[in-house]
Amino acid sequence: MSYEYWVRKELEALSQSLGFQYTPLKEIERRLTKIRGDMEKKEIEGLLVVHKMNLYYLSGTTQDGFLFLPLEGKPLLLIKRELERAKIESPINNVVPLKTIREVPSLVQKHFGKLPQNLGLEMDVLPVKDYFNYQKLFPTTQLMDASSILREARKIKSSFEIDLMRKAGEIGETVYQEGKKILKKGMTEIEFGGLLEAVAKKYGHEGLLRVRSLNYEAYTWHVLSGLTGGIVSQSDSPMGGLGLSPAFPVGASLKKMKAHEPILVDFGTCFHGYQADETRMFSIGKMKQKFIDAYHVCKEIHDAVLEETRPGTDCEAIFLMTLRLAEKSGYKDHYLGPPVLQTRFIGHGIGLELNELPFIAQGQPYPLEEGMTFAVEPKIVFPGEGSVGLENTVLVTKNGYEILTPVEQKIFQV
Amino acid sequence: MSYEYWVRKELEALSQSLGFQYTPLKEIERRLTKIRGDMEKKEIEGLLVVHKMNLYYLSGTTQDGFLFLPLEGKPLLLIKRELERAKIESPINNVVPLKTIREVPSLVQKHFGKLPQNLGLEMDVLPVKDYFNYQKLFPTTQLMDASSILREARKIKSSFEIDLMRKAGEIGETVYQEGKKILKKGMTEIEFGGLLEAVAKKYGHEGLLRVRSLNYEAYTWHVLSGLTGGIVSQSDSPMGGLGLSPAFPVGASLKKMKAHEPILVDFGTCFHGYQADETRMFSIGKMKQKFIDAYHVCKEIHDAVLEETRPGTDCEAIFLMTLRLAEKSGYKDHYLGPPVLQTRFIGHGIGLELNELPFIAQGQPYPLEEGMTFAVEPKIVFPGEGSVGLENTVLVTKNGYEILTPVEQKIFQV
Repeated sequence: MSYEYWVRKELEALSQSLGFQYTPLKEIERRLTKIRGDMEKKEIEGLLVVHKMNLYYLSGTTQDGFLFLPLEGKPLLLIKRELERAKIESPINNVVPLKTIREVPSLVQKHFGKLPQNLGLEMDVLPVKDYFNYQKLFPTTQLMDASSILREARKIKSSFEIDLMRKAGEIGETVYQEGKKILKKGMTEIEFGGLLEAVAKKYGHEGLLRVRSLNYEAYTWHVLSGLTGGIVSQSDSPMGGLGLSPAFPVGASLKKMKAHEPILVDFGTCFHGYQADETRMFSIGKMKQKFIDAYHVCKEIHDAVLEETRPGTDCEAIFLMTLRLAEKSGYKDHYLGPPVLQTRFIGHGIGLELNELPFIAQGQPYPLEEGMTFAVEPKIVFPGEGSVGLENTVLVTKNGYEILTPVEQKIFQV
Repeated sequence: MSYEYWVRKELEALSQSLGFQYTPLKEIERRLTKIRGDMEKKEIEGLLVVHKMNLYYLSGTTQDGFLFLPLEGKPLLLIKRELERAKIESPINNVVPLKTIREVPSLVQKHFGKLPQNLGLEMDVLPVKDYFNYQKLFPTTQLMDASSILREARKIKSSFEIDLMRKAGEIGETVYQEGKKILKKGMTEIEFGGLLEAVAKKYGHEGLLRVRSLNYEAYTWHVLSGLTGGIVSQSDSPMGGLGLSPAFPVGASLKKMKAHEPILVDFGTCFHGYQADETRMFSIGKMKQKFIDAYHVCKEIHDAVLEETRPGTDCEAIFLMTLRLAEKSGYKDHYLGPPVLQTRFIGHGIGLELNELPFIAQGQPYPLEEGMTFAVEPKIVFPGEGSVGLENTVLVTKNGYEILTPVEQKIFQV
């Protein structure tokens, strides 16, 4: 049996029987229309989408290839591997095989009738080496940075996207409920984290979390117990944990979890590329009162953020409000990290990546908009002792908010 | 307690008690000397190392920051977050805090006495946006591509590195042994893959696998059963599997594993950043004879590659030899993928990343050298039916090879 024959005959049915959801044509068309509006404003005649998550967003496939989007005319998918699957996954009609990147200009010219005067690229992630290559391949075309156009378009989620995030949130709920059964005294953080992730995968979590960055690596197994919760690391978060080695000094470690310690589980799930991020506290026996008190302040700050969550509220103002609340409660030097190392955000946009717009943070003076999704995560850190926190992923609705991570907001004591 | 106080007093002891190994000064010095030799040849006066794995390789830390390496004079570590941990993790003496990237030129000037005439950057991965930023920050300095220097240095592993890879291989052995107990009929691929990964993590696997690429995402849970083993995907590998959605259409899926199917488990482990990659076949009850026969041809090809593995053998010649063996055995149209989609490599260098030098592949006419490590992975694919294969990570020794993945080379039938 030839591969192409088999794929055409059976792969689509198999994928759908196993729950694959393809991005509908209307959804893709809406996204392309939005992007084109911004291309017109910036006078960009053509866009070459290279990065996997943007390719998925604008075409529905993540097969290895590129999307050429002219300001006027039909989009063109150029696929290196695997063409037959890209045709199933994407509702875009024009899909052509691509052997090497050197063929891109001729395929674009054939499709578009000419080479564009200028070409938008994702310069926030595109490697310099590739950029020099495009300069040679398109010697008469001006290369422009189109990163912000894609970033802006992706900040407002559609109902199709929100449904996928809700499903990621449902997986998270199962993980935390199962976590109560899994957690045992003397288990290491990484053993617990690994088993939680196994549960998540069983229910459809894709394993990867994604961040738009050269060096920042996202991961699911952020389980910190007692003193490891007080350790800061490379990542811009209130606490990083110890990790397993200097090569990956974040997240769960080989430390054994003890009774009465605060166990912070900051666990992300990913369904069809869309992520949900949440944090709950666990403990074996009752946590020390000090941590319970601090947790309740996190809960209070969390609720105060949600109280302000509706279209029009200024993102920076929300962050500054939480600073005042933390100070008033006596946690000024523990809120969002130890002094000097405190982070300056209380929420981060989330969707296909963990660092999308908006940022509920210092220096981000813009309003919340309907359809934005972000994770709100107040955390309080005691160096050498532990940390506590609460996190949910929320959607900004017409009049307020909806929580996409339905796990009960309480301490999971076993 | 202040964070700095606690870190200085206790973090190093805690890390070491939990098995952290730091890169020794002598090891770092040897690596820097090698790099400097190549910088001299290319007339590069200074190197600014940005990418996390190169930073780890040359400094011992992966905290958020940069390494400035002058051709002559001492190296300088500039750390954004977290400084105290970088000081523990790296044997480099000159470690300074960095608030923003804008301070890099002044800190370099202060340390080096002047700005270098030219500066090597990792243009294979550095985003264009950052490059433009460096052009502004170093207006009188010529920016040069130093990717190949780092890539070349990393291709020969030291005994320190090989020991870490051996430990990754030992974790893999435990995973496959436990896998025999975990595998059950009716379990989905992803459930099995998730549980295998949980075992690996419990024994020190860091969860992440790394590839040097913008879009290629490495992952551990490559479990393909029956017909999903015959599916090709975005990755340059003989089979990709179905995955869980169009957002990540590779690896284990929600398909249930049935009796008598070939179950291919291509599982990577990572210890202190160093990876081991291996593949074994599982089956529930006996596999169909067709697959057993094909497996034995994979084993034959695998052994033939090892027979040729010693310093001096040409990498391309090894690959071409395996093509002839596959053809002779009657698997020409199934070897390394279905026709048209067949990959053109039988081995890939491995270490901190899964796509290091050497490539045992078409178009790679250079000799094996002592200290190289690569994964050899003959695979045979039957579209619509399944695939089989065998993979080990091996070290090129003075006179031959050493297998770093000690799992027994047999079909794991349960």
